[in-house]
Amino acid sequence: MTFRSHMEAALAEARAAAARGEVPVGAVLVSPRGEVVAQAGNRTRELSDPTAHAEILVIREACAALGSERLPGYDLYVTLEPCAMCATAISAARIARLYYGAADPKSGGVAHGARVFSHPQAHHVPEVYDGIAADEAEHLLKAFFKDRR
Amino acid sequence: MTFRSHMEAALAEARAAAARGEVPVGAVLVSPRGEVVAQAGNRTRELSDPTAHAEILVIREACAALGSERLPGYDLYVTLEPCAMCATAISAARIARLYYGAADPKSGGVAHGARVFSHPQAHHVPEVYDGIAADEAEHLLKAFFKDRR
Repeated sequence: MTFRSHMEAALAEARAAAARGEVPVGAVLVSPRGEVVAQAGNRTRELSDPTAHAEILVIREACAALGSERLPGYDLYVTLEPCAMCATAISAARIARLYYGAADPKSGGVAHGARVFSHPQAHHVPEVYDGIAADEAEHLLKAFFKDRR
Repeated sequence: MTFRSHMEAALAEARAAAARGEVPVGAVLVSPRGEVVAQAGNRTRELSDPTAHAEILVIREACAALGSERLPGYDLYVTLEPCAMCATAISAARIARLYYGAADPKSGGVAHGARVFSHPQAHHVPEVYDGIAADEAEHLLKAFFKDRR
C-alpha cells in the first residue's frame, strides 16, 4: 500500500460520511508495519458528539485496541487539514506522520489559525505532508455544502 | 450553587483523578438552569485514550444525554487552563462561559501557545474567566508531578 492508496481509503470514508449527512472528511490510521488499523469518517451528528471528527475516531479506536495513549510510529491520513482539536490530539498521541488533502482556511488548525504544531505547547510535532489528493477532497466538501445551501 | 462551589466540585474531580494516577484536572458542566449535568476528571490512562481529558469527557457525556452536538448556554468549569484540543472542543460545542483555575504555560491553549479563541477559525468564542481557585488547582498539579519524579 502506498500513501496514495491510503488517501484513497480516506476519501472513500469521506464519501460515506457525506452519504450519512456528515461533513465529508475521512481518516485512515496506519501502523508502523504499514497495516491499516482504523478508518473512519466524521460522525458528529450520528453520535451527537462534537469531538467525533474522523481523526479523533481513528485515534481513539487504535489506542483502545493497543491499550495505549500513544501511537508512536503510526501515520495518519486525512482528507482535510485537521482543526486545532484534532491537531492537538495527533500531537498527544505522538503520531509520526500526518498526510492531509485539502487545506482548510476556514477551520484548519495546522497551516491556519491556531497553527497548533508551531508552538512549544505542542510537545510532539509530526512530519506533515499536505496537498495529497487535495482536489478530490475539496470537491467532496464543496459539493456537500453546496447541496446544503 | 455559585461559581465557587462548581469549581470546588471540579477540584474534587481533580483530586479523584490524582488518586487514580491520572493528571489531576477536573471539570464540571452546568446547564443554563444551573444544574450540574456532567462532571469528570482526566481518564487518559484508564481509558487508553489521549483525548479523555476532563473537559472532553463532560462535553461528550452532556451532548450524548442531550442528543445534540451543541451546548448553547452551558457553562464549563475546569481546574486548569484547557489545552488547544479542549479549547477547540469547547468552541465546537458552543459553550457559553469557561471558568478555569490555574494557568498552564506548558500545555495551555487558551492564554498560551495556540490561543485557540484568538483566531477567526474559532467559530464560537466563550466568555472566559480565569484564575478561579487557581492556587488549589496548581497545588494539586505540582504535588502530583513532584511525586512522579
